[in-house]
Amino acid sequence: MTEFIPPGTRFTELPSPFPMKRGGALRGARVAYETWGELDADRGNAILILTGLSPDAHAASNDADPSPGWWEAMLGPGKPIDTARWFVVCVNTLGSCKGSTGPASAAPGGDDPYRLDFPPLSVEDCADAAAHVVRSLGIDHLACVIGNSMGGMAALAFLARHPGVARNHINISGAARALPFSIAIRSLQREAIRLDPAWNAGNYDEQTYPESGMRMARKLGVITYRSALEWDGRFGRVRLDSDRTGGDPFGLEFEVESYLEAHARRFVRRFDPNCYLYLSRAMDWFDIGDCCGQGEHDTLAALASIKLDKALVIGVQTDILFPLQQQEEIAAGLARGGADARFLPLESPQGHDAFLVDFERFGPAVGGFLASLQPARHAATRIEA
Amino acid sequence: MTEFIPPGTRFTELPSPFPMKRGGALRGARVAYETWGELDADRGNAILILTGLSPDAHAASNDADPSPGWWEAMLGPGKPIDTARWFVVCVNTLGSCKGSTGPASAAPGGDDPYRLDFPPLSVEDCADAAAHVVRSLGIDHLACVIGNSMGGMAALAFLARHPGVARNHINISGAARALPFSIAIRSLQREAIRLDPAWNAGNYDEQTYPESGMRMARKLGVITYRSALEWDGRFGRVRLDSDRTGGDPFGLEFEVESYLEAHARRFVRRFDPNCYLYLSRAMDWFDIGDCCGQGEHDTLAALASIKLDKALVIGVQTDILFPLQQQEEIAAGLARGGADARFLPLESPQGHDAFLVDFERFGPAVGGFLASLQPARHAATRIEA
Repeated sequence: MTEFIPPGTRFTELPSPFPMKRGGALRGARVAYETWGELDADRGNAILILTGLSPDAHAASNDADPSPGWWEAMLGPGKPIDTARWFVVCVNTLGSCKGSTGPASAAPGGDDPYRLDFPPLSVEDCADAAAHVVRSLGIDHLACVIGNSMGGMAALAFLARHPGVARNHINISGAARALPFSIAIRSLQREAIRLDPAWNAGNYDEQTYPESGMRMARKLGVITYRSALEWDGRFGRVRLDSDRTGGDPFGLEFEVESYLEAHARRFVRRFDPNCYLYLSRAMDWFDIGDCCGQGEHDTLAALASIKLDKALVIGVQTDILFPLQQQEEIAAGLARGGADARFLPLESPQGHDAFLVDFERFGPAVGGFLASLQPARHAATRIEA
Repeated sequence: MTEFIPPGTRFTELPSPFPMKRGGALRGARVAYETWGELDADRGNAILILTGLSPDAHAASNDADPSPGWWEAMLGPGKPIDTARWFVVCVNTLGSCKGSTGPASAAPGGDDPYRLDFPPLSVEDCADAAAHVVRSLGIDHLACVIGNSMGGMAALAFLARHPGVARNHINISGAARALPFSIAIRSLQREAIRLDPAWNAGNYDEQTYPESGMRMARKLGVITYRSALEWDGRFGRVRLDSDRTGGDPFGLEFEVESYLEAHARRFVRRFDPNCYLYLSRAMDWFDIGDCCGQGEHDTLAALASIKLDKALVIGVQTDILFPLQQQEEIAAGLARGGADARFLPLESPQGHDAFLVDFERFGPAVGGFLASLQPARHAATRIEA
């Protein structure tokens, strides 16, 4: 059972026991994170980043790890998330295999991983773990919480469960609740892993590993993370050279198939299958209405219970997994709660993953919003007055 | 190896050998079809229906088989495709397992099925086989060719390869060529089947059958055949009763998962896996530009080479598999060729499969178009004059 921990990772111990929303508790658990920039004297310039399902905490290069991170173009001195001004914390989600405790981590009292003995994981648990990291750094008030994709869900849970900690929020391609199309996709991804005989009810190892199941799951992910429009322009009907197709009559033939295969190969051994199952299910379960409202129709009420000064909610028109109306819903709910909430639909062709590639659109949007913010101390003073 | 042949099916023998576009030939092959209505004295009132990947020829009840067909609401006396006026022929596609010769059919000289010895199947072969059925019924001119989904591809191939046979055309949720998003989806469906150890390079039987692979393929199909919008309204986040979820921690929990499971269960033993692979690959290969143009950029030129009087090209705004711009492209190309071609985007929430369920929108559109047509003899007289 391998965890994949970037070299610059730092850790915070979670309180032990750390109670989980759906029952059970973790003992001796930890959360991985990285930071950029300097926390100023009154600790008012902190920004928290919550990630999608698979990224680690290494969002960008820093002194501890100069290798490029997954959001390198967005985060650094003079970049949209300007680390000359802000102290930025990025947290690896609880339940992951990239430093934070998850199903691939050693369970208490031995070297054996939790596997399926890990308690049921919810997005709310991920939010609570991130909140503990923030507190452990001596930060009482965040200038902003930024959440991407699943991190957009976690950010809403963070804001709802830890009121007053953050006054501003950027939600990128997120959702206030999982809807049936994305549930169906994720359910099928989990089924692909579970059907692989090598998964063996979670009891695999490096030798007997559910590689086929993970490959299927990842390919389906990549299909739903990008967009048909982008692929029309990028791949069209271009075929592979015949020497790459092999002799299999149903083997790879088109460039788009080779692209999926390459993506899947990079992923399958770099993410733990059980962690994938837990995080995927956590997304299905998420409904901000469960935090604060009284069922499905209370999504807007639950969002309105979140008190913010400003919010920027960004969506992408070509996103089929977290479609635009979900970001519109977030913005409407936060506005109902009194926030100056802006809904920003972008025309990026890259679908759900546009925030990882379309920096021409995302950079100015995120950078402009952050430039307009006051450090958190002013906001905090105001609410405490 | 089972074929699934409705009781009212009729058959036409194909010429033997029947050459296949990509090489090889079939010997002793047949095509299954059904008919409705009466062919009039001068054989001018015939309509041909070409189906999507999986339907049989039993589009609607008739004297030979009074059970409801897959397009029962659309086809019959007084219905949009009015069999009091038209003589309608629906063909089961070549390569299928529902009466027409395909990979599950006995190969010449024995009882063993072709399996993967079936020659590579193209949409053009399906069109040629359908054209043979039309000729064998003594029909020289069709009043209209109607094609749905893959049948929309086959209809374009039919029109391009058999010029002058039809003067009018309804293309429903079709495409002039496969694009990378749908290729990616189909490639993944085929991979799911091929990864199932029970597939065994096509050498399965009823006992050892690639049920898991077919289930995955079908679920992915259903996800892409419908739409997120429809499912939001239909399923939302409704959960199953706890007694239906079983004890599996990653088992079914949401209604949408149960819906997919039920769909898949109905399908997996009712469609032959090898036939599925052949037909799926045929769709990926299809590009009308291969018929008549000189490569990818000749799609419009190839469409313009098709000479029609009138065409109705219907698409659905929520279709992610054959998106609306593909029907717009067909209409534009046919119009460039001189047809009175109308592009009709419908707002059905049901996605690609809307033509199978949204009769309120499809009925008037198809019925209105057919009511405006002259029998084929007039058109034929005009071009021959």
